Amino acid sequence: MRKEISLGVDFGGTRIKIALVDSKGRILHRAAVAVRRSWPRKKLFGVLVQTIENFLNTHTPSKKSLLGVGMGLPGLIDFKRGFVHRFINVRGFRNLPLASMLRRRLKLPVFIDNDVNLMTLGEATYGAARGFSQVVCMTLGTGVGGGLILNGELYRGSSLSAGEIGHVPVSRGGPLCACGHRGCFETYVGNRAIVERARQRIRAGECTIALDLVDGKVSRLTPEVLSRAAKRGDRLSLSIWKEVGEWIGIALAGVVNVYNPDRIVIGGGVSEAGSVLFRPVRESLRTHALAWPLKNFEVVPAKLGNDAGVIGASVLVRRSLP
Amino acid sequence: MRKEISLGVDFGGTRIKIALVDSKGRILHRAAVAVRRSWPRKKLFGVLVQTIENFLNTHTPSKKSLLGVGMGLPGLIDFKRGFVHRFINVRGFRNLPLASMLRRRLKLPVFIDNDVNLMTLGEATYGAARGFSQVVCMTLGTGVGGGLILNGELYRGSSLSAGEIGHVPVSRGGPLCACGHRGCFETYVGNRAIVERARQRIRAGECTIALDLVDGKVSRLTPEVLSRAAKRGDRLSLSIWKEVGEWIGIALAGVVNVYNPDRIVIGGGVSEAGSVLFRPVRESLRTHALAWPLKNFEVVPAKLGNDAGVIGASVLVRRSLP
Repeated sequence: MRKEISLGVDFGGTRIKIALVDSKGRILHRAAVAVRRSWPRKKLFGVLVQTIENFLNTHTPSKKSLLGVGMGLPGLIDFKRGFVHRFINVRGFRNLPLASMLRRRLKLPVFIDNDVNLMTLGEATYGAARGFSQVVCMTLGTGVGGGLILNGELYRGSSLSAGEIGHVPVSRGGPLCACGHRGCFETYVGNRAIVERARQRIRAGECTIALDLVDGKVSRLTPEVLSRAAKRGDRLSLSIWKEVGEWIGIALAGVVNVYNPDRIVIGGGVSEAGSVLFRPVRESLRTHALAWPLKNFEVVPAKLGNDAGVIGASVLVRRSLP
Repeated sequence: MRKEISLGVDFGGTRIKIALVDSKGRILHRAAVAVRRSWPRKKLFGVLVQTIENFLNTHTPSKKSLLGVGMGLPGLIDFKRGFVHRFINVRGFRNLPLASMLRRRLKLPVFIDNDVNLMTLGEATYGAARGFSQVVCMTLGTGVGGGLILNGELYRGSSLSAGEIGHVPVSRGGPLCACGHRGCFETYVGNRAIVERARQRIRAGECTIALDLVDGKVSRLTPEVLSRAAKRGDRLSLSIWKEVGEWIGIALAGVVNVYNPDRIVIGGGVSEAGSVLFRPVRESLRTHALAWPLKNFEVVPAKLGNDAGVIGASVLVRRSLP
């Protein structure tokens, strides 16, 4: 019975989140520690190991009661080999056999994967797409990430980089993206693009209560502020979410038409805008996707919030053990 | 040994193609008969059965020497239930349990699937993507179709309609598509769009040797004519293929970024334009897709030509039998 518990770790560039998760996806205990991208590899790895060890000492009678450790990282991760090709924005953590390094130190089975993949796995197992076999998960934030569950399994692609929805071109010769290309979906719906839209319109003289929410300081506008303003009926904010929703629907229509999923789950901060975002997304999907694959399809907000990563990481352990 | 042979059928709206295919994907015998979309269901079904029976009587010692029959049809086909939801442009053939109807008459195992799925299976087993596990096949013609092989298996999606690459939106508010939506990929690279581009520029006064190839009759221009003209260095034709290639690269960049395939195979009449098309496609892919998934990736012309369908259908038989 106790053996059904595994440890999920969400290893980000600024924070390590960690949780004991049972076989029903419930979090029994949790912790988080801050880290810095600039730390040398040795220090970062030391803090990671120490955090896990301390947590286990406090919350489990013995390591024997644990199935193992699952961990998500932002970047290009080789799940099969337990290898970190790239850890986004953390230079020290490249080309590392991280799973075996941790296994040696922790004396536990360790499995690693891309963090958005594990969020997707979490949402498809215990969250907004529970029980569905064809699931796409999209995270909206500074960047736009994505993960795919196909026929009930994580789909990683030929070279582990599947799911880069943020870089689907949605217009020819559109705005320049951080990736160096033009017209990527991310350039229309990333946090910066959303806020920049509002700023431009404010500069052009439009009124908005969003400004009141940040004491008149345009520089302090965020998608979250725009979503609070929209919920109060602010016209400018509503029209921005409408436009963002339309672009999301355009990109997701391509995913629906090619992939024919059961569910698309939208997570990340921006998704908390709720119906002011989801209504235009659904409308745009109807306008851009084929009728047949939309029949039994739904686009839904993520359910597990910030826990999706650690919960998904714990699912990875159970799925990966023989 | 003889038992390694199966019958592949490519059942189109205007023609039934049929072939005996061995376990190496080699065609031993072939035949084709013309049919009409307007025929009532009974007649069409009768001709189908008779064609297969006659062919088998002529070319096989006995049905016992055959593994079974595989058949591709354009439309929405339920492979698992052997059911035809829709047969594109053939009204009589809707909502039919075609596989079991044929099984009863032929006394052979029968498997049916979407025709582009089977072309994809053919190309991934014996053609341009032989031996690869993540393969996308795109067919260019009046419409643009697509099929996906993921982890070595045909991926059909949640409601059997996966692979509709032709209806990926590539521009907001673009040209109206046959599907009723705007900006679909197909509206930029379908046969009609390609020819219309040439016509407009000819009307605007541009010169082209493509016109000489059709005795000056603009109405007789086809993609095939434009590709012959391009191969002779015709500036207008070359620039049209360049633009078509750029749009193809934009749509395929989305596919590369999201699915991270090993190979994309381009088939259909337009793909015969060869390097005048593939050069701009590759250039556009480099401009629009992420560098990492392009690393070990190639976009290649189909290899099996018009045989891909019957060969893929024969593969379906071998894959589906226990």
